[in-house]
Amino acid sequence: MDELNTTTEQPDTAAAPRNRRTAGGREAKRAARAARSGVSVPYITRKIPYYEVLDEEGLEIIERNADTILEEVGIDFRDDAEALDIWRKAGADVKGERVRMPRGMCRAIVQASAPREFTQHARNPANNVVIGGKNTVFAPAYGSPFVRDLDKGRRYATIEDFENFVKLAYTAQSLHHSGGTICEPVDLPVNKRHFDMVYAHMKYSDKPYMGSVTHPSRAHDTVEMSKALFGDNYLDPLTGKPKTVCISLINANSPMTFDDTMLGAAKVYARANQATIITPFILAGAMSPVTVAGTCAQTLAEALAGMAFVQLVNPGAPVVLGSFASSISMQSGAPTFGTPEPALVLYVMAALARRVGVPFRSGGGLCGSKIADAQAASEAASTMLPTCLGGVNFVLHTAGWLEGGLSMGYEKFIMDCDQAGMMHTLLGGVDVSENGQAMDAIREVGPGKHFLGCAHTQANFESAFYRSPITDNNSFEQWEAEGSVDMSVRANALWKKQLAEYVAPAIDAAADEAVLDYVNRRKASFPDSNV
Amino acid sequence: MDELNTTTEQPDTAAAPRNRRTAGGREAKRAARAARSGVSVPYITRKIPYYEVLDEEGLEIIERNADTILEEVGIDFRDDAEALDIWRKAGADVKGERVRMPRGMCRAIVQASAPREFTQHARNPANNVVIGGKNTVFAPAYGSPFVRDLDKGRRYATIEDFENFVKLAYTAQSLHHSGGTICEPVDLPVNKRHFDMVYAHMKYSDKPYMGSVTHPSRAHDTVEMSKALFGDNYLDPLTGKPKTVCISLINANSPMTFDDTMLGAAKVYARANQATIITPFILAGAMSPVTVAGTCAQTLAEALAGMAFVQLVNPGAPVVLGSFASSISMQSGAPTFGTPEPALVLYVMAALARRVGVPFRSGGGLCGSKIADAQAASEAASTMLPTCLGGVNFVLHTAGWLEGGLSMGYEKFIMDCDQAGMMHTLLGGVDVSENGQAMDAIREVGPGKHFLGCAHTQANFESAFYRSPITDNNSFEQWEAEGSVDMSVRANALWKKQLAEYVAPAIDAAADEAVLDYVNRRKASFPDSNV
Repeated sequence: MDELNTTTEQPDTAAAPRNRRTAGGREAKRAARAARSGVSVPYITRKIPYYEVLDEEGLEIIERNADTILEEVGIDFRDDAEALDIWRKAGADVKGERVRMPRGMCRAIVQASAPREFTQHARNPANNVVIGGKNTVFAPAYGSPFVRDLDKGRRYATIEDFENFVKLAYTAQSLHHSGGTICEPVDLPVNKRHFDMVYAHMKYSDKPYMGSVTHPSRAHDTVEMSKALFGDNYLDPLTGKPKTVCISLINANSPMTFDDTMLGAAKVYARANQATIITPFILAGAMSPVTVAGTCAQTLAEALAGMAFVQLVNPGAPVVLGSFASSISMQSGAPTFGTPEPALVLYVMAALARRVGVPFRSGGGLCGSKIADAQAASEAASTMLPTCLGGVNFVLHTAGWLEGGLSMGYEKFIMDCDQAGMMHTLLGGVDVSENGQAMDAIREVGPGKHFLGCAHTQANFESAFYRSPITDNNSFEQWEAEGSVDMSVRANALWKKQLAEYVAPAIDAAADEAVLDYVNRRKASFPDSNV
Repeated sequence: MDELNTTTEQPDTAAAPRNRRTAGGREAKRAARAARSGVSVPYITRKIPYYEVLDEEGLEIIERNADTILEEVGIDFRDDAEALDIWRKAGADVKGERVRMPRGMCRAIVQASAPREFTQHARNPANNVVIGGKNTVFAPAYGSPFVRDLDKGRRYATIEDFENFVKLAYTAQSLHHSGGTICEPVDLPVNKRHFDMVYAHMKYSDKPYMGSVTHPSRAHDTVEMSKALFGDNYLDPLTGKPKTVCISLINANSPMTFDDTMLGAAKVYARANQATIITPFILAGAMSPVTVAGTCAQTLAEALAGMAFVQLVNPGAPVVLGSFASSISMQSGAPTFGTPEPALVLYVMAALARRVGVPFRSGGGLCGSKIADAQAASEAASTMLPTCLGGVNFVLHTAGWLEGGLSMGYEKFIMDCDQAGMMHTLLGGVDVSENGQAMDAIREVGPGKHFLGCAHTQANFESAFYRSPITDNNSFEQWEAEGSVDMSVRANALWKKQLAEYVAPAIDAAADEAVLDYVNRRKASFPDSNV
């Protein structure tokens, strides 16, 4: 991992700014701000062990059941004759659209060619992320049609909101990734908004991004825009193959179904050597059994089938085993978040992904609350802590998620970024170096004294503890004097400050032009539509 | 553990209600309510593994450093000549009030006689708790001078508040313990309020309780009141020794100091075979080094010294290794809660306590927030999850804690109880029985269908998922129609409902009279004082 980490300092510059002259002033300001506000890392490499909730025997039971599901029940691959043909040639039992795989087949296909970890390249190579292994990458929330803030309440998202969140994610030191459909810009036509979303990631951030999956042609557009952005850096000079420069979310229609939209997008990305996250999207009780072990077996079966399909399309294309699993309220049928059962699913799935030997995606700051209140915070923490202890490699929905994913919250985004910042410290583990042991301090201070002024405290003052920008630890009297506000009010002030101070990363003018040229030509080539 | 668990069903009735005739109606109502609202357990026996953040080598470093602290730096035992004498006789190096212990001495003393786990008896034996081993016991927060609720804001606590919280803890299915100084009844004289607090626990609850530690005489009063309450059941008929019927909090004055108040109370309880929790109370940066490893070594040294002292006073008296460790803001000096460093300390200390072989106390729903907002909820969750994953046996401050312990929150109490309820499910782990595997459900439903109506879902409907009484999972529209309220408003309604529906547990009239007789005699024997 350490070797890989250092590659970010090598001259693999992708589309890093070449036109330094014009951007120098802003760059300098940005660097100065970054220096003031602490060290940021392109991604986290954990130093703490994984939390394992099930023993070997328990995990084997679930793996056996997943194989039984694949062999006896099978998976539907809908409206995609090519997919069925690929499965037939691979030796699966295909009847109609139902594909049944012999025990162990999918696992063997995945293990034969899927990388255990891979680098997703950013246009700024300092922001390349390594997905898999002991690494954790935090990305913003994904997919909500609404946004919410304290000032204007809940409303449909627009491209302005989308760009705002790209900027906030770029500014956030605790996020490593620009994400994908952070919110749906419903003011743009359905069939063209992917151009504007992908372009916003490319223009307003230089962190890695996700691609469109709502139609195979939109996946194709994402790949073409990426080629234009990365230019000469798109192909890996060593292998001649495309570098992995985007990652995209391929959801299963659980239970046990993939549709042609998702399969089509998966094929486009796989053939371009771009990464896909194969994610059974499961609300247990509706899309899977009400039990943890049942949900895990089904998730594993679906993910194995999807990942094997990608490997059959293009052996070696990066795939991530995804799990989005929550529960429903058995009273109302509404989805619930932050409850203990999904945490147990997450721990089990993380262990199962490690046993397959592929990167794992799950978790985030999930919640069912409509607002950034105590419910939102409890639920998010009850998802984010298992995310980090269990060992999620790619954390979609790290920041902003409200209302079961229906709404993207500005204040929630800031609160979640703070939590993600804390996870950097947690995943860094316990320092048992001489300095970490601090025996000099204990000897210097002795019984009954205090450590505030001792040499060790002075030496470690700056880095001693995680420092939250939005928690209030002042006295009650001071808090009252400052208006008795809750955390969401402080978060409101912070996102406004961050947007006001945002400075776009420099972008190579020729690359920017090439992307825009592609976008404009494509946009002009077919009429707007909202279907 | 299972054997111990079943002792609660044996005819070890302590002061269980003998006068069933008069209490029958209320008892029946209570039982009916309990049955309606789900199953409660007297304490949790975990089925999931511990999370270990440090490896063997790391733990050994900290143990070695703790021994170095005891040997080289030493511990002050202040204003207690008897304590120094006890240490001298045990072979420690005593110079003035500074006691230095040879390497391994304290550990050896503790391991020679301290029980690995013990039963704390409740007057209702169904509520006996086993402290130690794989068990987790949840108790309310402790020690705040203020209370807060949404209606009346923050104010000094009174005995009415105290009794309210005893009643709420009694009603709460997720709390196993009545706690101790839940809040300070500042309307009562300082030197007599312990009578009213201990009596409230005895009268308004039949869960186990904590004793007074603010003066050795008050510890003595707690023991005498306990003798009166338990009557013939106070002595164990097998051993002739007192049963352990209360547990009390002995804080070290960190760094490396115990004072005469705490030592005096510890001696009283130890000699009566009552349990003590030896807790270094540490805000890292002020009372210990700014590092996790340094804080852990110091905590272990202090706790070992305190526990060894108790064992020297009365070998075999139950002791708990306590750790209360948070950090301070290096900017303002204010204590902070819910940050990653204390979570790391907790994981390490839990492992170290297991290696000593004594029960462990830490954690809870700690927070620095003044109100039950998102900050409070994040911070509490970031403490409570490590509490459960790390393996805390006795969880003080499970519910109600606000403002760094200065305030006890009614709404926060309800929110924390909900979180504690979830922990029951989390600690229950993954069911890999046939029913848990749910393969019948997956076979019955098949690809593309839903699980809502399948036989397995119907059969597991009631127990399927943890059900929160205060989270809102309704649609946005319904939430809006219900007033767009945040979680604290729902918690406010719930504590009022629980207080309104509270029915006191039956108490043996003779025992009640004996306790009150002792209290009244003692109260009359010396004047009120507020020092």
